[in-house]
Amino acid sequence: YYSSHIKRVTLMPGDGIGPEICSSVLQIFRAAKVPIEWETVDVKPVIKPKGNCELPKQVVNSINKTKVGLKGPLTTPVCHGHASLNMAMRKQFDLFANVRPCRSIAGFKTLYDDVNVVTIRENTEGEYSGIEHEVVNGVVQSIKLITKKASTRIGKYAFEYAVQNNRKKVTVVHKANIMRMSDGLFLRSVRDVSHQYPQIQFDECHLDTVCLKMASSPTEFDVLVMPNLYGDILSDMCAGLIGGLGLTPSGNMGLNGALFESVHGTAANIAGKDLANPTALLLSAVMMLRYLNMQEYANKIEKAVLDTIKEGRWLTFDLGGRAKCSEFTKEISAKF
Amino acid sequence: YYSSHIKRVTLMPGDGIGPEICSSVLQIFRAAKVPIEWETVDVKPVIKPKGNCELPKQVVNSINKTKVGLKGPLTTPVCHGHASLNMAMRKQFDLFANVRPCRSIAGFKTLYDDVNVVTIRENTEGEYSGIEHEVVNGVVQSIKLITKKASTRIGKYAFEYAVQNNRKKVTVVHKANIMRMSDGLFLRSVRDVSHQYPQIQFDECHLDTVCLKMASSPTEFDVLVMPNLYGDILSDMCAGLIGGLGLTPSGNMGLNGALFESVHGTAANIAGKDLANPTALLLSAVMMLRYLNMQEYANKIEKAVLDTIKEGRWLTFDLGGRAKCSEFTKEISAKF
Ligand SMILES: CC(C)[C@H](C(=O)O)[C@@H](O)C(=O)O
Ligand SMILES: CC(C)[C@H](C(=O)O)[C@@H](O)C(=O)O
Repeated sequence: YYSSHIKRVTLMPGDGIGPEICSSVLQIFRAAKVPIEWETVDVKPVIKPKGNCELPKQVVNSINKTKVGLKGPLTTPVCHGHASLNMAMRKQFDLFANVRPCRSIAGFKTLYDDVNVVTIRENTEGEYSGIEHEVVNGVVQSIKLITKKASTRIGKYAFEYAVQNNRKKVTVVHKANIMRMSDGLFLRSVRDVSHQYPQIQFDECHLDTVCLKMASSPTEFDVLVMPNLYGDILSDMCAGLIGGLGLTPSGNMGLNGALFESVHGTAANIAGKDLANPTALLLSAVMMLRYLNMQEYANKIEKAVLDTIKEGRWLTFDLGGRAKCSEFTKEISAKF
Repeated sequence: YYSSHIKRVTLMPGDGIGPEICSSVLQIFRAAKVPIEWETVDVKPVIKPKGNCELPKQVVNSINKTKVGLKGPLTTPVCHGHASLNMAMRKQFDLFANVRPCRSIAGFKTLYDDVNVVTIRENTEGEYSGIEHEVVNGVVQSIKLITKKASTRIGKYAFEYAVQNNRKKVTVVHKANIMRMSDGLFLRSVRDVSHQYPQIQFDECHLDTVCLKMASSPTEFDVLVMPNLYGDILSDMCAGLIGGLGLTPSGNMGLNGALFESVHGTAANIAGKDLANPTALLLSAVMMLRYLNMQEYANKIEKAVLDTIKEGRWLTFDLGGRAKCSEFTKEISAKF
């Protein structure tokens, strides 16, 4: 049974290889007959007179309507106020949870096998508060902001995620031995939530120790939940274990919408040459299908992508193969 | 030529396996005829009426005199004011640079070969400022403090280290795309220093990207310099690549003294059983010898330790062997 209801999704191709990998996704979704109608919008930022960046109106309007977006990589514009457009979008739509599953991919050998972790990152505050000031010349303070509300919210999200995805354990990552009040509040908030989920194992671990163990025995971990910066670091580290950002999906989840994106760069050097690997965006699109409750489509597309990589006949250059992006795409599409 | 001048060094055995691994170091140093006289002091913290911790007087007095300390692991006491006695010591003696070399060890196979990086961590400020407050109930701020003075000082230290140790490249690790003012100041300070060292390659890299690359191709890195917390994370991660904290030395360097320590835990479960691996403390003691300009002793002890591990006949349990701490120690001592 495939739902016949057509969903609308906002598509932001982005820069560099963005358009190529987006058209790969479109082609594969068409082949799989996914009942989605895309609303393509351009995310070129509006630069205001004072140098501030703003999201273009049509992006905001479209996502406000569709509640779901899929986004390729963006060039970081030189603008004040926001570190990046990515962050502006997280803020604009209150996408409080950044979810990044990292799973070893059969057919692309790295030093590690059987990595299967999910980082769940608080996406709205922490070290990303943007509050900074110069006390006197040469002395600067940045403020890390932790609230009970946001910490509890992300804690709940992590445990709900674990339940819904048949995960066994949630580990909260912190440095409450150093940042006793802020990380302490985060830790206690998640710990409080954990009591409501006796069926899920709960563990508390210092960030440095997580990094050490992740480098030596990543299979010890399952779902990890943590403040903003720690999630930035750990999600990249985990991606490194399984082959890099070209292979890992990302979802920014809010109460009232979600944005899925590949988090690799724009790879300007190979843009337009049909050499890009669309896997990260494809797997992000698969996450999106799950979010939209289109499980069957999600499963069949995910299987087609992973099978194609496993078979090893049509791998893109970054995976050690010689296939073009279009050939890889065609092979996946042929599997339905 | 071995210097006949006898140096005095403060020895703090610490807790758990601390005394055992310290006596291993003493035995090996005696066998190698190192002209050091040890002043052994107890670091049991003084707990003040308000719950604050203080370093015992005799520790402070001894180090003020000797200017050099070697320390085993300490149990973290429950006390306010300082996250740990380790931190209290870093502060008390203004040990501004934490240096942790991480090198693959022949004879102990991990997933990685040829790791050879040194993390140089700013040890006095950053996220470890200890300045935190609750704004309103459930809203907490922690302050990350970055000064031009401390950033320049650690930058200089890193480049001097590179020059003196024949290193080729220094990479500054930052998140100045997010913490524009604080990490921005750190980044610019180190960059300014780099101009005085045209013979050393200089690179700037985001923390998340360093983590990703460290997990996939650590040989890209050489010397890394960074703010306090990033150093805490990266040094543990690097230790994870080569086999853990049982194998990595650490030095806390000041203008007017230095403290060398093993950074693993007290391993209370195996304490007193002659099962501990003294390698981390031994290699820290070797760093100390280099600091004391006793290069020949440093070289011969380092060689004896590494050769013993490489030969593989007398390995402790954590390294997959069956030797006791005392047997491992004897084998090393027999090499002089
Ligand atoms: C682009 C950058 C602002 C961003 C971050 O630091 O969060 C990126 O590294 C990420 O992980 O999405
Ligand atoms: C014990 C702890 C306070 C310390 C730190 O966080 O710096 C430790 O992890 C280290 O790296 O020396």
